[in-house]
Amino acid sequence: MTLGVIGLGLIGGSLALDLKRRGFASKVLGVENDTVAAQAALTIGLADEIVPYETCVEKADIIVVAVPVGTAVKMVPEILDKIGPEQLVIDVCSTKSQICHAVKYHPKRQQFVSTHPMAGTEYSGPWAAQPGLFDGRACIFANTEESAPKAVKTIEEMYGVLNMRPTYMNADQHDVHTAYVSHISHVTSFALALTVLDKEKDEKHIFDLASGGFASTVRLAKSNADMWVPILTQNRDNVLHVMDTYIDKMQQFRDAVANIDEDKIRELIEEANRIKRILR
Amino acid sequence: MTLGVIGLGLIGGSLALDLKRRGFASKVLGVENDTVAAQAALTIGLADEIVPYETCVEKADIIVVAVPVGTAVKMVPEILDKIGPEQLVIDVCSTKSQICHAVKYHPKRQQFVSTHPMAGTEYSGPWAAQPGLFDGRACIFANTEESAPKAVKTIEEMYGVLNMRPTYMNADQHDVHTAYVSHISHVTSFALALTVLDKEKDEKHIFDLASGGFASTVRLAKSNADMWVPILTQNRDNVLHVMDTYIDKMQQFRDAVANIDEDKIRELIEEANRIKRILR
Repeated sequence: MTLGVIGLGLIGGSLALDLKRRGFASKVLGVENDTVAAQAALTIGLADEIVPYETCVEKADIIVVAVPVGTAVKMVPEILDKIGPEQLVIDVCSTKSQICHAVKYHPKRQQFVSTHPMAGTEYSGPWAAQPGLFDGRACIFANTEESAPKAVKTIEEMYGVLNMRPTYMNADQHDVHTAYVSHISHVTSFALALTVLDKEKDEKHIFDLASGGFASTVRLAKSNADMWVPILTQNRDNVLHVMDTYIDKMQQFRDAVANIDEDKIRELIEEANRIKRILR
Repeated sequence: MTLGVIGLGLIGGSLALDLKRRGFASKVLGVENDTVAAQAALTIGLADEIVPYETCVEKADIIVVAVPVGTAVKMVPEILDKIGPEQLVIDVCSTKSQICHAVKYHPKRQQFVSTHPMAGTEYSGPWAAQPGLFDGRACIFANTEESAPKAVKTIEEMYGVLNMRPTYMNADQHDVHTAYVSHISHVTSFALALTVLDKEKDEKHIFDLASGGFASTVRLAKSNADMWVPILTQNRDNVLHVMDTYIDKMQQFRDAVANIDEDKIRELIEEANRIKRILR
C-alpha cells in the first residue's frame, strides 16, 4: 500500500513514520512545499520520497491531507476531482464542519473519510514528528455515514495500526466538543503567555521562578499560528461561546478575590476540583 | 540534627523524606493534626515519629512550618516565642509578605528564615509526597537580611542537600513575581475546569476527547482549596492586578475571533509564542 502524505509536519510526519514502521504502508510519498522542511523530512526518514502534489494524488492508495484546515478545505475537493475509484482521501484537521460541508455533495464524497486523531504536542514541523504519538489516544471519525463503509473500514484499520481508539461523531458535534476540550485550552494558554510577557519585564525571573505548574499551563502557547488561526476562525461560533463562559468564570473568580470572599473562592476551587473525577 | 516538620503534606512530607534519606537529618519529628494523614505519613515513612506540636517545637533543631499560609502566619511567631537560642524556624509558604511582616519586629526574628521552594504537584497530603521533588528547582529566600547570617547559611545547606538553586528576593517582590508565574496559572486552570464542567454535560466526552494539551492546561485545577484560598487572599492585590491584565488579553483575543480578524489573531499568537524563548 502506497501512502501519500500532504504536509509532513507534526501530525502528517508522525503518522507516516508509524504507518511505515508498523508495515501498514510499503511506501510513503510525501508532499512538502517548504524546501527546508522537505529536506528535513527526508533526512529524518518521514517519507521515502518527496514528490510533487500531482504525483502523490496520482499514485497513492490513501492520500492523507495534513495541512492547516484553511488549506485543507480547498484541497480535499480538488483531490477528489482527480482520484480514481480505488483511491481514498482522509483529512486529519482539528475542525470538521467546514471540511465536511465543502465536500458534502461531491460526486466522490464516499471516497473521503474525515478524521481527527486527538494527539499532538505544542511543536510543529517535521522535526516535531515522533513515533508513538498516537498510541492510546482517541481518533474521531466525523460523518462516517457519508463515506463508503469499505473506505471507513480501511481507515479504521489504518488508525488501528496506530493504536487509536475510534470515536464516531457528527462534524458539528465534534466542533462543539473540541471547542471545550482543545481550542479553549489553547486560547487560555496564549492569553496567559501574553499576560506574563506583558508584565514581567525581567525575563530571567520568569525562567527562575517558573515551577512545573506554570510551564504546563502555558505550554500550548508555543503552538503555531499557521495551524491555530484557521482553527479559531473556522470554529468561531463555538469558540466564542466557550470564551464568553470562560471570561464569566474568570470574572466571578476575580470578584471573589477582590472582595476577599473566602467562602466563594473555596466554592469555586472545590467545584473546579471535580475535574479530578474525569481526568487522571 | 533533628528535623521537625509541622504539616506532612506534599511539601513538608517530600522535604522530610529527602532530608532523612540524604543524611541531613538524623531524625524527623512530624506534626500532623489529621489522624488519617498522620498514620499515612508514618506508614509511608515520612517521619520517624509523629509528636505533639509542643514536643516538636521543644526538640527539633530546625522546625519547618509546612502548613497553609493563613495558619503559618499565626504559627511562626508563636514558635519563635518558645524556641531556644540554637533553634531555627523556616516556613515554605507560597506568599511571603504577610509572614515576613508578622515577625518583622519579633525579638527572635533572626532565628527565622523565610523560604519558598518552587516545586510541587497538583496533589496534596502525605500520599502526594515524593522523593526528588525539589531537585533542580529554584528556592526563594525572602528578606534574608532580617535573619542571622549563620541561620541563612544552615538553611542554604539544607536546600543544597535538596539540590535547589537559591534565589534571593524581597518578600514583596516575591509576591509580585509569583502572582505572575504561579498564582495566575492556578486561577486560569480553575476557570478552565469550571468552564468545561459547566458546559460539557456529557462527561464521557471530556475524557474521550481530552488530548494531552487540555490535560496539561487544566492540571492545576486539581489543586487544594485549603492551600489556595489563603494564597489568593493574602496576595490579593498582586493577583487582582494580574487577573485584570489576563481578562484584558482574553477580551482582545475574543474580539479578534468575533471579528474573524485573522491578522490580529496571528499577531496575538505570535506574540504569545515568545514564551518559547524563555521556557523550554
